[in-house]
Amino acid sequence: MNPHLFSPSVQHTLDLAGIFVFAISGALLAVRKNLDVFGMAVLAEVTALGGGLFRDLVIGAVPPAAFTDLGYFLTPLGATVLVFFLHPEVERINRTVMVLDAAGLGLFCVAGTTKAHAYGLGPTSSAVLGLATAVGGGVLRDVLAQEVPSLLRWDRDLYAVPALVGATIVALLIHFHAFTASGGVLAAVTAFVLRLLAMRYGWRAPRAWHRRSTVREQEPAAPAVRPPAHPPTSQ
Amino acid sequence: MNPHLFSPSVQHTLDLAGIFVFAISGALLAVRKNLDVFGMAVLAEVTALGGGLFRDLVIGAVPPAAFTDLGYFLTPLGATVLVFFLHPEVERINRTVMVLDAAGLGLFCVAGTTKAHAYGLGPTSSAVLGLATAVGGGVLRDVLAQEVPSLLRWDRDLYAVPALVGATIVALLIHFHAFTASGGVLAAVTAFVLRLLAMRYGWRAPRAWHRRSTVREQEPAAPAVRPPAHPPTSQ
Amino acid sequence: MNPHLFSPSVQHTLDLAGIFVFAISGALLAVRKNLDVFGMAVLAEVTALGGGLFRDLVIGAVPPAAFTDLGYFLTPLGATVLVFFLHPEVERINRTVMVLDAAGLGLFCVAGTTKAHAYGLGPTSSAVLGLATAVGGGVLRDVLAQEVPSLLRWDRDLYAVPALVGATIVALLIHFHAFTASGGVLAAVTAFVLRLLAMRYGWRAPRAWHRRSTVREQEPAAPAVRPPAHPPTSQ
Repeated sequence: MNPHLFSPSVQHTLDLAGIFVFAISGALLAVRKNLDVFGMAVLAEVTALGGGLFRDLVIGAVPPAAFTDLGYFLTPLGATVLVFFLHPEVERINRTVMVLDAAGLGLFCVAGTTKAHAYGLGPTSSAVLGLATAVGGGVLRDVLAQEVPSLLRWDRDLYAVPALVGATIVALLIHFHAFTASGGVLAAVTAFVLRLLAMRYGWRAPRAWHRRSTVREQEPAAPAVRPPAHPPTSQ
Repeated sequence: MNPHLFSPSVQHTLDLAGIFVFAISGALLAVRKNLDVFGMAVLAEVTALGGGLFRDLVIGAVPPAAFTDLGYFLTPLGATVLVFFLHPEVERINRTVMVLDAAGLGLFCVAGTTKAHAYGLGPTSSAVLGLATAVGGGVLRDVLAQEVPSLLRWDRDLYAVPALVGATIVALLIHFHAFTASGGVLAAVTAFVLRLLAMRYGWRAPRAWHRRSTVREQEPAAPAVRPPAHPPTSQ
Repeated sequence: MNPHLFSPSVQHTLDLAGIFVFAISGALLAVRKNLDVFGMAVLAEVTALGGGLFRDLVIGAVPPAAFTDLGYFLTPLGATVLVFFLHPEVERINRTVMVLDAAGLGLFCVAGTTKAHAYGLGPTSSAVLGLATAVGGGVLRDVLAQEVPSLLRWDRDLYAVPALVGATIVALLIHFHAFTASGGVLAAVTAFVLRLLAMRYGWRAPRAWHRRSTVREQEPAAPAVRPPAHPPTSQ
């Protein structure tokens, strides 16, 4: 019924790894926003588990995995402890953190799509929920931290599109009864590589046509709070 | 069990029309906030489907209609494409868009109330969920776009009250076993007309008594980002 | 199955009292943020019922108690009317309001934990949901009002930790089959007293190590909007 990509224990280890790297990004944003250690733990949990929680509520998988698997809950606390003591060091390897985050993105979009399909949703809905699993936690993190979700901003490198591509590959493979473990790996790697390329070459989604470039000055976000994630690129 | 106002196909067409006009308002806010095309699609989907999604999660109708009816998901993408290419033109007919939005408000408060009642909720809860169906998407849109929900602001014309009146009419009719298709139309039209009158005459809800008018200067919102939706009215 | 602490009617009265004091804090924030009376009602409802609503969605208790018990819905409206007419007087007794809020915190963390356990969740998840029941409404209130949740801010006295201690006591007592009405009272009183002590002595959670104190100037919040809840304390 629930087509695991790998053996359950391998899948579980990958899930925990993805949860850990997502939690790191939540805890780091909390430090940048000057929140206390409790705020760090909340943002770590929300970033790591929020997307899957939303998916589980939508497909009716209650109580959600985030509340039935103790490892899912404890892993973000581990990430919080790490960032609490070593955040300058973690910031310094920010590029590495972002590569790991891209790997988490690839894993989560595949796992989310397969789980949604296993609960009876159609291919399109499954892909959308796969995307939501991968990016939903980051959106909740930004809402709680009072930032415009970086996912929606034109001045951020593509993040959702790689996840959407990975989720769509999975949904198509399932739809044509061709989904296998290697197909799942292919989809995850595709999302991962696309995200790396987007970071490397500064790929961005377009804004609406006729958009005056002068509007750029009025941007609501405060880039000063977040250190640039990559060297300036031509836009 | 599920008292459709009209034949299912008419009801479905009206639903899609309401979804479309709500999605327009989401995509337009995304353009004003300088988000990219992906942000436009997300705000369009959230505005159009967020209220119904919340209602369905509360009444236990999982997976929610937004994830089982492909038309519900694709319609906001159509609105996104329209706004992407033609947003200056759409802005220019903003008054027309707001009239259509008022019509969507009327339809959604009625449809939300009847669906909640069909799932066994009492009259008061059904009316509240009818209201939530109509206005919930807009609240989520504003939260994601980092604005104080316009629904809650004293300097915005009445929006929730017309929907609440429409939902209450439906709940009362159901309670007294007098709900018919024409009663549903009456409720929807009442909400629609009340919203138009609120826009026309600048009706606003009062703030707390003794509120100093000098506080007005400190308002947290940034009106510059949103073009005025109507000519200045006496306040 | 559902281990009420007290007789159902006593429990229900306590629930309504907790809902009332939480709703007061929501309505007061709405006044401070210059929202209209509808915004006051929404923030009152969300603050009072949001935490329990989240818990009920997670444990699959749909429709949530907030939508099946009319008293739960009407009580925040009563708080809204009170604040609407008397908000300067209510502000003046802010210290009393905060003591009552601390009592609500104690009640809700216990009630949330026991309900989650009654729906089959493990001790850790039950404690987390008890915490979420107690503090979730306040987080939603702050998100809607466009404030960084005060729960997450380092410059606020401990709020979540007392609730977490109370919820943990309940979860441990349940786990060791030692949970009784007096155990529940003990947990609620412990949370209440810890919160009062945190307010009295300005207890705060630490921020990440090595955090430059100069960052303090960049704080994103606007303290001017919220009157200080207590006299300045040494930090």
